[in-house]
This record gives sequence, structure tokens and C-alpha cells, in this order.
Amino acid sequence: MEKFNFEIVAKSQGSKARAGILHTPHGDIKTPAFIPVGTKATVKALTPEEVKDTGAQAVLANTYHLYLQPGNEIIKKAGGLHNFMNWHGPVVTDSGGFQVFSLGVALGKGLSKVTKKNEEMMLSHEVDEDLETLKAKIDNSGVMFRSHIDGSAHYFTPEKSMEIQHDLGADIIFAFDECTSPLESKHYQIESLHRTHKWAEDSLKHHVEKGKYKIQALYGIVQGGRFEDLRKESAEAIKKIEVDGIGFAGFGIGGSFAKEDMSDAVRWVTDILPEEKPRHLLGIGEPDDMRKAIMEGIDTFDCVAPTRMARNGTLYGKDGERMNMLNAKYKDDFSLIDDSCECYTCKSYSKAYLSHLFRADEMLAGTLASIHNVNYLVKLVDDIREEIIRSR
Amino acid sequence: MEKFNFEIVAKSQGSKARAGILHTPHGDIKTPAFIPVGTKATVKALTPEEVKDTGAQAVLANTYHLYLQPGNEIIKKAGGLHNFMNWHGPVVTDSGGFQVFSLGVALGKGLSKVTKKNEEMMLSHEVDEDLETLKAKIDNSGVMFRSHIDGSAHYFTPEKSMEIQHDLGADIIFAFDECTSPLESKHYQIESLHRTHKWAEDSLKHHVEKGKYKIQALYGIVQGGRFEDLRKESAEAIKKIEVDGIGFAGFGIGGSFAKEDMSDAVRWVTDILPEEKPRHLLGIGEPDDMRKAIMEGIDTFDCVAPTRMARNGTLYGKDGERMNMLNAKYKDDFSLIDDSCECYTCKSYSKAYLSHLFRADEMLAGTLASIHNVNYLVKLVDDIREEIIRSR
Repeated sequence: MEKFNFEIVAKSQGSKARAGILHTPHGDIKTPAFIPVGTKATVKALTPEEVKDTGAQAVLANTYHLYLQPGNEIIKKAGGLHNFMNWHGPVVTDSGGFQVFSLGVALGKGLSKVTKKNEEMMLSHEVDEDLETLKAKIDNSGVMFRSHIDGSAHYFTPEKSMEIQHDLGADIIFAFDECTSPLESKHYQIESLHRTHKWAEDSLKHHVEKGKYKIQALYGIVQGGRFEDLRKESAEAIKKIEVDGIGFAGFGIGGSFAKEDMSDAVRWVTDILPEEKPRHLLGIGEPDDMRKAIMEGIDTFDCVAPTRMARNGTLYGKDGERMNMLNAKYKDDFSLIDDSCECYTCKSYSKAYLSHLFRADEMLAGTLASIHNVNYLVKLVDDIREEIIRSR
Repeated sequence: MEKFNFEIVAKSQGSKARAGILHTPHGDIKTPAFIPVGTKATVKALTPEEVKDTGAQAVLANTYHLYLQPGNEIIKKAGGLHNFMNWHGPVVTDSGGFQVFSLGVALGKGLSKVTKKNEEMMLSHEVDEDLETLKAKIDNSGVMFRSHIDGSAHYFTPEKSMEIQHDLGADIIFAFDECTSPLESKHYQIESLHRTHKWAEDSLKHHVEKGKYKIQALYGIVQGGRFEDLRKESAEAIKKIEVDGIGFAGFGIGGSFAKEDMSDAVRWVTDILPEEKPRHLLGIGEPDDMRKAIMEGIDTFDCVAPTRMARNGTLYGKDGERMNMLNAKYKDDFSLIDDSCECYTCKSYSKAYLSHLFRADEMLAGTLASIHNVNYLVKLVDDIREEIIRSR
């Protein structure tokens, strides 16, 4: 991998935090960094220029969604995701594993009810035990699931996930993994973990065979639920995997974390993972969570929260408090969202205007709110980077 | 009116077309000009910068909608529409008359059914005769109507329309009028027309009394349905109205035109209206219609069509043809919408990407499509302006 390189520029004294630069074929990412999610090849409600103006350095798109719509062949024909979506900075794609288990549904089960329930579960970060019997159908080779769009049946394997991600052409891609529920038994977690390790190796093998490691950095994913021994075993296993002398270019830490377990899970594995390689914490974007994870040595984050919250009318205030613009008190509040914020929204629009746009169900509401929330999280992580550099 | 002034810079040889400059307190509008509609203080799906980048010189907001939501007092407190919506170019507001009759409904009638029907009628430009009995309740002083949002009852008079428009603070505002259906009997058209003339005088009187004529230009509206004698009578009446030596700063031509009647109605009245004052054709934005109306001496237009079409997936092609991005053939069409167009959308996005965004119901779809359609109409009218200047 010549074009991909991770450089650590500063290490914190009192923690495992580090500041670095991820060099990718489409530009650098200064780390730690928050990466907004553009699920279907668009960060919802924002143009690429608006995304860039928030300070975001990269976007993460979802393999599962793009495989189903418009299909990876279309994006390949367009010359890859960068060209297709007109984002010429670094792009990340996930493996599709998480969505296959959380959005896709098992064969022969009612679709709309299940996906609705799954979505609520994802949003609440809770797990509905009734759903345990409705999981996608897993065997050691891959996962059979149904599309959340039209119910059609699909089969993902590590090779399939790699093929799709090669077509999408992101700078950073992920090995196919099984993302278990934290409520699973230890017995099942062990079985699943060994499958995830085998799939990691299969993913890397396919990636190396196709020669794509020269232009796309493949990250292995550490799983293991809430069990310290499994998390450590997973980190050891994933870091050792090599094909033709080539290992993973970086590491993802996956899992549906209970909020209180996140720091532990990260600490256990960053003690083991090689220091010189980048680490991405999948699906985490809460300010406090990111701060803690950075102290434990995480370099990059992605999360739909800031844009989803934004579309629902909730914006981050100056001190991280959440303000819902549908609250009656904002109707005639002509102050800015955050007068110290330098984002486009905070330079020109009052809470009263945002309140009006949300009440009137205007599309500009989601745009202005997303700009602010993404800017808020990007800036928060950038500020932590500056602290690390100052404190080295 | 010191800050408002209309200057004719060129007259066409073979027609009544003219090129001019409308000087307003918030900047100039080179005419003829197409003005996009920002109904609820936002051109749907676009930031003010995106609107400006289409070449649009002004926006028109709807008095009826803003009175109901967020309310004119809120906008007044925000310092007027320009500040509230962060559009610092010229702003136009209509009188609310058209919406009171087309969206508002008569007292005591089922609301949702009626408004749905009204909307379909407006979209199809046809009139449902069942609805004739459900019209808003008109007396010689004003109109009683119900909100399409919550069914609450409201009463608009010329003075009320002026008060609201004074609070909104647009550069160009309109006298309150009754917009009749073209299917009304001549008897009713005559009755309505005399009311509209009285309301025009009442509007101007209130406007002059409040001293607002110094900062907001009030246009009188010519009505008269499809009857030549009534249209001419209306133009004569409206042009003569003066209060304390002050007449209307410009003229609107209103009515729910059948497409084939539009040119006639415009020709009849522009022969009568004073040449030195600007003329706005309300709610018209079809390319052919605008071309014809400019030849008859119209200076400005407003219409929701380009942005509404855009949100439904339909874009103007190079030769004015309409392309619906939901058509299967665009799924893998990697060409631009119009390779000769210089709008933001045509510089960077393929039909395949737009097709994907519309299929995936992504908000960026409406944004990109609206940018192109508004740009298309603005450019079309700007090009006609250049022709007029060349042919003088």
C-alpha cells in the first residue's frame, strides 16, 4: 500500500491519545477525526461543498445500502463513489455486516414490522429479545438476508463484500464481519467471533489477490461483545492475520455497545493493536464517547447521529446541550444557535428562522441543522487534536 | 418613492418587449426577469446562496402562507423577510388574494377534502365545478377563509393585506385583489372586478397613509378574467387610481389563465398600462408563456413550477424538453443533464446520480434539480433580455 500511510505526529502524555495524519489516495485525514455518514452516497441534505465547509475531511458510505440501491455496478461504471457523488476527498465504506444484521431480515418473516422494530432498536440502542429469532440466516460462509426495500433475498460473503467495496472504490474499506447483539450468550459470541476472524482472513485474501490493497486500505474489525477475554482474543487474532506478508492497513472496533461498556471495550483492544496503525471506532459519535475513546487511542469515528438529530430538529448548543427547534420557546428567539460557532448556519440564521423551517416542514431546515451539527462534532474532535498536540 | 425606480434601457423593434432595470432598496433587477418563489420564506430546498448562484435576482414570498406560519409579527420582529430568511436582494410579496381563494376554504365545509381538491385543481389548472359552492366567503370589505393548516378562521381586507405586507417588508408588494375562476359568469366577473378596483384603492390609501410608499413599491393588480372589455376596463381603472397624487409603482396582471388566453389578456392590458411603469405577470413561468408575454411588454414573472417540477424529479433539458429522472433509462445514463448549462448541478452530477437520489428519496435530489430548473428559466429570460438589447 504505497498511497496509504498513517503518520503519528504527537502522543498525549497522560493517555493513549495520539494525533496523526492518514494519507490516502484522495487526500489526508488529520486524526483524531469525526467522519460524517453519507449512507446512500450523499450526506443527507448537504451538497459535498457544504460537507467540506463543516471541516469534515472524509465521508463514510454504507456498502449494504449502495449494493441494494443503485447497485455497485452502477457506481463502478460511474468511476467509483468519488466521481458518482462528487466528493473528491477520502471516502470510507463499511463492510455491510452491521446493516445485514440490523436492517436486513431473516427469510420468511414479516418484513415491514421487523424492519420497523429493528430501526427502533438501533435508534434506542436497545435490543428487542423477540427479534432474536428473526435474525438474518448465518452459516460459516456468509449471511442470507432480505432487502429492507423490496424483500428480495441476497447472500453476502467476505468475498462479496470485498467485490462490492472494490466496485465502490473507497479509500478505506472494511473486512466483512458479524456484528452480534450484546445480549447474545457467551457461547454464541465465541462461535460468531471465530467466524468473524475467518471472514477477516477471507476478506484480506480476496483483497490481496485482486491487487486492490495498492489503492484501497483494508481494515480488519475487532469484535467480541462485552467480554474482555473475547475482545482481547479478537484483537490478537485480527492483528496477526497476514496474506502474502500483507496485514490489515488499520483496524475497526465494532459492536453494538451498551454506552457504559464502550470505553472498556476500546481500552482492552487498543492495548493489543499495533500502535503504528490507525483505529476506527464504528458507529460512535456522541461527544463524551468520542472524548473517552480518543483517550484510549482511537483515531477516527463515524456516526449518523448528528445528521439524523438535525433532521429531527435537534441541534447542539454551545456547551453540548441539545436544543429541539420545535420547542415553543424558539418561535420568537432571534438569537443564533451558537454565537461562538463559525459554521454557515450560525453566521446567518436565528433560532426563530430554524424553528419556522422545522414547523413548516421545509427542506432547508434539515440542511441548516445538519451543517451545524456536523460542524459541531468535527470541531470538537479537531479541538481535542489540538490539545493532544499541545500536551505532547 | 425615491428608492424605487424603473428604467427602460432598450425597446424591441418588432414587438412591445422592453429591457429595463428595476431599482429597489435591496438592489437592481434587470428585466425581463424570472423570479423564483420562496413561499414560506425559503425557496424550497435551496440556500439563499444557491438561489443567487442560479442568477435569480429576487425572490417572491407568499403573504397568505407567512401570515399563517410563522405569522407576520415574528417576521417583523426579525427585522423583515430579508433578515429573517438571509436573502439580502430584492424581495416581492403577493397580496394573499390568490391563496385565500385557492387554498383557504369556506366556513363550515370539510377541510382536508376541499384543500386536496383545490390543490389538484391548481396543479391541473382546471376548475372543479363542485368546488364553486365551497369558495371562501366574500363581502365587499374582505374575505373570510379558513387556514389550510389548522382550519382556523381568518378575515383578510385590503388594509389587513397591506399591514401584513408592511410587516414582511418586501421591496415590491401587491394590492389585495379577488382572483376569480375563468369559469365564472360574466355577471360575477363584473361584480368581482369592481370589488378588486375598490380594494386596490383601499390598499393604496392604507399604503400611502402609513408612509410605506417611500420604502415599498405597491403594484396594483389588473383582473377581468377572459373578457376583453373587462380586462381593458380594469387596466384603465387601476392605472388611474391615485391617493394624494401617488399612483401604483407598477402593475400586476392576475388571473387563473387558460393557457391559450394568456397572451390575449396580456396584450389587451399592456396597450393601456403606462409604458414607463413595470408590469409583473403573476404565477406564470412556462418558457413559451414567458416568451410570448415578454413580446407583449411584461417585465417580471414568478412561478412555483420550476422548483415543484424539480422536487418531483423533472428537469428541463437543453431544448426545453422535460426529463423525469425516475424514468428507468436514466439509471445508468452517466451524461450530464445539459452539457451546455453552467449551473452547479450540470457541472458535476450525472443523470444516473440524480436518478439514484430521486429513487432513494434523498433530499439532495430536490436541491440539485431545483438549482438546474431555476437556472434554466432565469437564463432563458436573461437571454431574451440580451436579444431585446441587441435588436433595439
